Amino acid sequence: MFSFELLKKDQHSAARLGRIITPHGEIETPIFMPVGTQATVKAMTGEELEGLGAQIILGNAYHLYLRPGMELISQFGGLHKFMHWERPILTDSGGYQVFSLGKFCKISEEGVSFQSHVDGGTRHFISPEEAIRIQQTLNADIVMILDECLPYPATEDYALASLERTTRWAQRCRMVHDGKRGMFGIVQGGTYLHLRRESARQLIDLDFEGYALGGLSVGESKEITHEIMSIVTPILPENKPRYAMGLGTPLDLIKGVAAGVDMFDCVMPTRHARNGMLFTGFGHIVIKNAAYTRDLSPIDEECNCYTCRNYSRAYLRHLNLAGEILSARLNTIHNLHFYLDLMRQIRHSIAYNCFRDLQNKYLTRRTD
Amino acid sequence: MFSFELLKKDQHSAARLGRIITPHGEIETPIFMPVGTQATVKAMTGEELEGLGAQIILGNAYHLYLRPGMELISQFGGLHKFMHWERPILTDSGGYQVFSLGKFCKISEEGVSFQSHVDGGTRHFISPEEAIRIQQTLNADIVMILDECLPYPATEDYALASLERTTRWAQRCRMVHDGKRGMFGIVQGGTYLHLRRESARQLIDLDFEGYALGGLSVGESKEITHEIMSIVTPILPENKPRYAMGLGTPLDLIKGVAAGVDMFDCVMPTRHARNGMLFTGFGHIVIKNAAYTRDLSPIDEECNCYTCRNYSRAYLRHLNLAGEILSARLNTIHNLHFYLDLMRQIRHSIAYNCFRDLQNKYLTRRTD
Repeated sequence: MFSFELLKKDQHSAARLGRIITPHGEIETPIFMPVGTQATVKAMTGEELEGLGAQIILGNAYHLYLRPGMELISQFGGLHKFMHWERPILTDSGGYQVFSLGKFCKISEEGVSFQSHVDGGTRHFISPEEAIRIQQTLNADIVMILDECLPYPATEDYALASLERTTRWAQRCRMVHDGKRGMFGIVQGGTYLHLRRESARQLIDLDFEGYALGGLSVGESKEITHEIMSIVTPILPENKPRYAMGLGTPLDLIKGVAAGVDMFDCVMPTRHARNGMLFTGFGHIVIKNAAYTRDLSPIDEECNCYTCRNYSRAYLRHLNLAGEILSARLNTIHNLHFYLDLMRQIRHSIAYNCFRDLQNKYLTRRTD
Repeated sequence: MFSFELLKKDQHSAARLGRIITPHGEIETPIFMPVGTQATVKAMTGEELEGLGAQIILGNAYHLYLRPGMELISQFGGLHKFMHWERPILTDSGGYQVFSLGKFCKISEEGVSFQSHVDGGTRHFISPEEAIRIQQTLNADIVMILDECLPYPATEDYALASLERTTRWAQRCRMVHDGKRGMFGIVQGGTYLHLRRESARQLIDLDFEGYALGGLSVGESKEITHEIMSIVTPILPENKPRYAMGLGTPLDLIKGVAAGVDMFDCVMPTRHARNGMLFTGFGHIVIKNAAYTRDLSPIDEECNCYTCRNYSRAYLRHLNLAGEILSARLNTIHNLHFYLDLMRQIRHSIAYNCFRDLQNKYLTRRTD
């Protein structure tokens, strides 16, 4: 039901080309996964995502468990039919969201209890086993273990205790694995490299279908993020997909791929789009800036997306200032195209032995 | 550049089948025009509107004059290129908007002055000639004269004085007509039928390319709206298109067509969509109602729109409660499909001599 094939390794970096096979189809790696928190990638239909080349999207167990709830989604046989997306879905366990969104969150050996951020009151308890059952009800193609997403900064003692609990939770998650999908372990350990190594070692013993780097981009510097990524990724099994959770900027993606990461997700392209921040080959632009008032050119002359083929910066600026829904739509199409096209270029460059050139182009030209 | 052909008259009512030819293509009448106030039909792309069968959309000179302004749109050679819509556009002169949105609006023989509702401060003056020049800059296929939209209720004296000023303004508009598009007169006169007749008579003398009924649905009862429509429409020249401005509900459209109206526009389908009110063959439904929590059926089993083919009421309710942009999109697609499909059915029924049956079906079955 789930497998990974390593197709090629880059000569000059740890970058790799691969293929993941899931119950809902294949995924070429390295890949970026658009985020569909509430059973929708904000502002987009499934057909549009397919048109942009999205191969897999991310759903959030935490959000969907609270609203609309598992009873409804199980009536549809899972998230795919509910939201009209028949390609692969990876679901986050809710570990990160419980800590960032839940109120009065309490963690114990048994699991996490928290108050809903949706109705502001109801109290919930989720065990590692329950986190997996929720994701199985969602019928995700890839499920994530329940982990404690360590805040930054954290003491070494706490980081150690936390990663060891995450390992014990990972064992419990593994016990309820139904074998109908992939289950990924999540490496924690904060900014302590020896603890990251220890976490990886413990999780590798549990033989997951894939491994994720968690607790990145939670406040630490970019240098630390990249250092952890480049040191921990190579420790992970070569024959399993590797996933850097919540990353990142275009440069993060390039650096992650160079470190051997296969999968990424981030709200950045979609959230920035709604705020009018648009990615281009020469850095990002803020569309509401007065400089674009009379600018008849597209966002990026070299971009081939629907938005750039049909609309000017001046029109997009107008839509943004007028608060129009079409603004969020056209900007999201452009930014997701940028991310998904970047990943296509990356795959292509690894295949044709020129990933180093692409890397150099980005390292020298880009500012974000 | 602009012409109207009357193709067929219904045997049992004043309904008619026609064709309007404009610089940007033909329009089959009777037709409903989706409203694109700020250079976008809210939540929709031009391609989606075409897919739904929209033949012409409405733009608002008042809004576009204030933002983004005429200088920018003239750089694009008009509204079509600016907003990426190459089919016909009718623009409203701003008469209605000045009175409903403008602050400290003052009317004189010369024209209207008002403060912008966008920046809340700048003062503007628009003469009848300027209102036409703005619409010519927008390169609209059909432009509307500047009129005073009479509030309800109004005294007979004021209604008379107002309609006579509107006629004088209509003469001035006619003087700056460039012949490259259609220009429509707007019949006023409030709820006084003899004044409506007088207004129509005066405007007919000016030989416009089409005639509109203005000042409807401004607070008067439905009975009065329908009475004015059914009495005034037949007075208007048979060989010119007739347009009921700002109407209305599906029932208003049926009654309007029966009275001989060819064109309609209304924010109702798009605005209701964003508020989660959805039209069906059995009345409207409010999608956030708890009754739809576990409802796996589409909005309307008999509807063939993209939304009904792919999404359930339960999912649409979820999107609505979660405040997702996709909610506005899917609901707008459905409601616009409902309106545009109703007009297709109307045209079809007139062509096949069964408009009376359609009319009866609506009069007996519908509640809105």
